[in-house]
Amino acid sequence: MTQDGNTDIYTAALITIGDEILSGRTKDANTPYIAEKLNDSGVRLMEVRVIPDDGQTIIDTVNEMRNAHDYVFTTGGIGPTHDDITAENVAKAFGVELELNQEAYNELLAYYKDESEITESRKKMAMIPKGATLIDNPVSGAAGINIGNVYVMAGVPRIMQAMFDSILPTLQGGDPVISRSVTVALAESVVADGLTIIQNKYPMLSLGSYPKYQDGKFGTNLVLRGTDETVLATVTQEVADFVISLGDVNPIIE
Amino acid sequence: MTQDGNTDIYTAALITIGDEILSGRTKDANTPYIAEKLNDSGVRLMEVRVIPDDGQTIIDTVNEMRNAHDYVFTTGGIGPTHDDITAENVAKAFGVELELNQEAYNELLAYYKDESEITESRKKMAMIPKGATLIDNPVSGAAGINIGNVYVMAGVPRIMQAMFDSILPTLQGGDPVISRSVTVALAESVVADGLTIIQNKYPMLSLGSYPKYQDGKFGTNLVLRGTDETVLATVTQEVADFVISLGDVNPIIE
Repeated sequence: MTQDGNTDIYTAALITIGDEILSGRTKDANTPYIAEKLNDSGVRLMEVRVIPDDGQTIIDTVNEMRNAHDYVFTTGGIGPTHDDITAENVAKAFGVELELNQEAYNELLAYYKDESEITESRKKMAMIPKGATLIDNPVSGAAGINIGNVYVMAGVPRIMQAMFDSILPTLQGGDPVISRSVTVALAESVVADGLTIIQNKYPMLSLGSYPKYQDGKFGTNLVLRGTDETVLATVTQEVADFVISLGDVNPIIE
Repeated sequence: MTQDGNTDIYTAALITIGDEILSGRTKDANTPYIAEKLNDSGVRLMEVRVIPDDGQTIIDTVNEMRNAHDYVFTTGGIGPTHDDITAENVAKAFGVELELNQEAYNELLAYYKDESEITESRKKMAMIPKGATLIDNPVSGAAGINIGNVYVMAGVPRIMQAMFDSILPTLQGGDPVISRSVTVALAESVVADGLTIIQNKYPMLSLGSYPKYQDGKFGTNLVLRGTDETVLATVTQEVADFVISLGDVNPIIE
């Protein structure tokens, strides 16, 4: 956590665990959901890492990220199969044992109804790092895990979203970063010089320029970000006036 | 590069540079494209990092990744605006100067037709790390950059794809990892015990289990990956026979 004037800045990292993303087989759908909701809560997502289902990589990445950020979220690898190795390696990252968690076991029992249904594989879902608390899974039997500043969630988007929504109100955030955009029908090289001047004039804002290419034409999304709504409104108007002066009579302000 | 029996394994990392992904504003569309094509070329994507538009973070990440992997790809931040800082920081990572690259300048000139159109901002796109070669950009004026084992590409998907497609034939890869999948209408906890047995029997394959949840029902994609087509076919049939024995009469084999 760093200090930015009087405002605490809270940061987060997301670790996506899964060979299926790295092979290109599965498209990650979780990052935008987490990124947007964290942003609205005043927590800045500073880094996303997609890593393979490899124990040592999980341990090293969790330890690096939990020391660097206020919050760390992981997705993937908490189910009953042999390739679900997140819980055991998060335990190793914290130097604690995995233990049968009675609450998680009771949830499994409630889900599968009968003790004879709790196979060894299913029992694995109740093996939780010592000292961790559970994150409710309203959809299936595998609970999420919170230990220290690390939140271990499912990879299936619907389950991840339910878990993340239940975590979100418990996080402490700073002032949310708000953004406005000015979409212009000009290539970014046309607006570049003027933008630099505006960015230098308002260092408290971040002014991003994102080229786009559609139907054979270049355009640019200019995105202004900051925590002060009044300043943001003023500078957005200044950017709009600037692009109008360059001949784009109809910039889209959002 | 590590040795796996007689087969060289080539690995890669992808660095996605952009505040717009981390804020949730833009969905990353580049990872699946790169991941799938690398995989088909026998290069294993081992890590993806999404990092902010921050100079020191770019330098540190490029240096860490280029030492760890055979190939490093970056996307984003090569345009003419003040927030396009990839080239200068990749130069710093390699400890070389940025210099006006005559070939890149000529491309700009061909693109903008007249020298008077090469503003300071546009000229920035011809500032290339000393010793680097260019990656052709068939769409806009900003060339990509290859220096050492690092390939610096645009963030706009259409441009990135054209650049990546031109790089791909120049990469050396090992045996491609091929995959088969068996999609079953059973929850993964039902198949877990048997899968572990099959995985242990065939350590030369990786057997992944990916739960899905659709229309209120659980299913599982079982994905087999390996480099030997014959072994893969045999084990895929064994997995199919196994899930049929559990009562899923109609697994989808792909």
